Amino acid sequence: MIKKSILLTVSYDGTNFYGWQRQNEKRTVQKELEKAISSLFNANIKIRGTSRTDKGVHALGQIVKFEQETTIPMKNLPRAINSYLKVGDIIVTNAIYVDENFHTQYNVYKKSYEYKIYNNEFMNPMYKNYAKFVRGNIDIQKMKQGASYFLGEHDFKAFCASGSQIKTTIREIYEFDISKKDKIITLNITGNGFLYNMVRIITGTLIEVGLGKRELSDIPKIIKSLDRTIAGETAGAEGLILKKIFYKL
Amino acid sequence: MIKKSILLTVSYDGTNFYGWQRQNEKRTVQKELEKAISSLFNANIKIRGTSRTDKGVHALGQIVKFEQETTIPMKNLPRAINSYLKVGDIIVTNAIYVDENFHTQYNVYKKSYEYKIYNNEFMNPMYKNYAKFVRGNIDIQKMKQGASYFLGEHDFKAFCASGSQIKTTIREIYEFDISKKDKIITLNITGNGFLYNMVRIITGTLIEVGLGKRELSDIPKIIKSLDRTIAGETAGAEGLILKKIFYKL
Repeated sequence: MIKKSILLTVSYDGTNFYGWQRQNEKRTVQKELEKAISSLFNANIKIRGTSRTDKGVHALGQIVKFEQETTIPMKNLPRAINSYLKVGDIIVTNAIYVDENFHTQYNVYKKSYEYKIYNNEFMNPMYKNYAKFVRGNIDIQKMKQGASYFLGEHDFKAFCASGSQIKTTIREIYEFDISKKDKIITLNITGNGFLYNMVRIITGTLIEVGLGKRELSDIPKIIKSLDRTIAGETAGAEGLILKKIFYKL
Repeated sequence: MIKKSILLTVSYDGTNFYGWQRQNEKRTVQKELEKAISSLFNANIKIRGTSRTDKGVHALGQIVKFEQETTIPMKNLPRAINSYLKVGDIIVTNAIYVDENFHTQYNVYKKSYEYKIYNNEFMNPMYKNYAKFVRGNIDIQKMKQGASYFLGEHDFKAFCASGSQIKTTIREIYEFDISKKDKIITLNITGNGFLYNMVRIITGTLIEVGLGKRELSDIPKIIKSLDRTIAGETAGAEGLILKKIFYKL
């Protein structure tokens, strides 16, 4: 029996999940998606995702690989899987065949994240699970200037949550745009990879700069320090979206 | 003891409420807000809202009146009440004193609603509770043309859910704008008042026009018919936001 490797693109609202990774007794994205795919094919299917997003973090472009022979055409597979995802907080948006050697880590060369801040005197309750609420006057120009320090290749150790086991803390940021529309500040960051909580710690630090609690000139010093305790707070999971994963086939 | 009348502006995410109106055993906006205000003042306070929004409908500008003497300055009252609204899906954004004769119906002369449609091949799960999902090609120009028929004073009986008891079904629409950005179509409608489900039935009808399931020329015919069974489907509650209530003091 020839097995085929299938790659899905998946969106989810992370609010009611204990993150991506399968855990006993907990509702996680991996577990729910495995259940749906296994039900569809009436088989015990294990899936592999690229990013192990945390509790409360959302995704519009998670990619997920699994092995299964099927006669369902790939263009019909997303709707077939979605029909088993009744709650509607996970939605498969694309399916393609990939080579069995495709690796959800090694074939990925770039990722984009988005972070949303709701900046007003009072929160909009409809954004409660989708943006970090910040009261007070944020200087968006200072945030933009602050963001420019992160561009390029740096050792981001100061922006990595402790406890993560990785070979190197060097990463390259290709793009980092910040914009404001009405009450919402949106950060868009693209790089070759991100350390654990890196986007959220960078965002937390830039918020402090925007609020005038920290100097712009602190940012290169924090980067150089390689010291997590000097960087800003980890901004909440609710504002973070895994936007897009770029891979070579 | 001189009682003072207080008017609040209130936002809420309607997702986890059985609508505005107090009901036994059910979590409603009125009930939760009464509980919070009663706790703050340590009194049994009853409130009166302007719009009895349905289950799942959101608000950014509900207005709410109650009677209570207090030494809390009005500018501090929203945060004081919000501190008793722990879930965060109701947020008081403004408080002012009003004359005791202020009436939450008769002093209101204009209301604005917004309706959001997510138009794409697949839903974005983060919009599940905040926009109606419509697959297929929507002709936005046709929707705009269709909207223009509703402007002015009409008998909107064909766009009123049955079972509502009202003196007249004549209403005047002052503005009706439709715009599209990315995948989201937004309808903004302002009038002197709205019948039960009127915005949702108008929206449902315009969606059918936009999808080409109905002719543009059907709209004046439906209005003229005064017959609910001829108008389109009632679009889901999730897409509707009570945006603003205009009142005279």
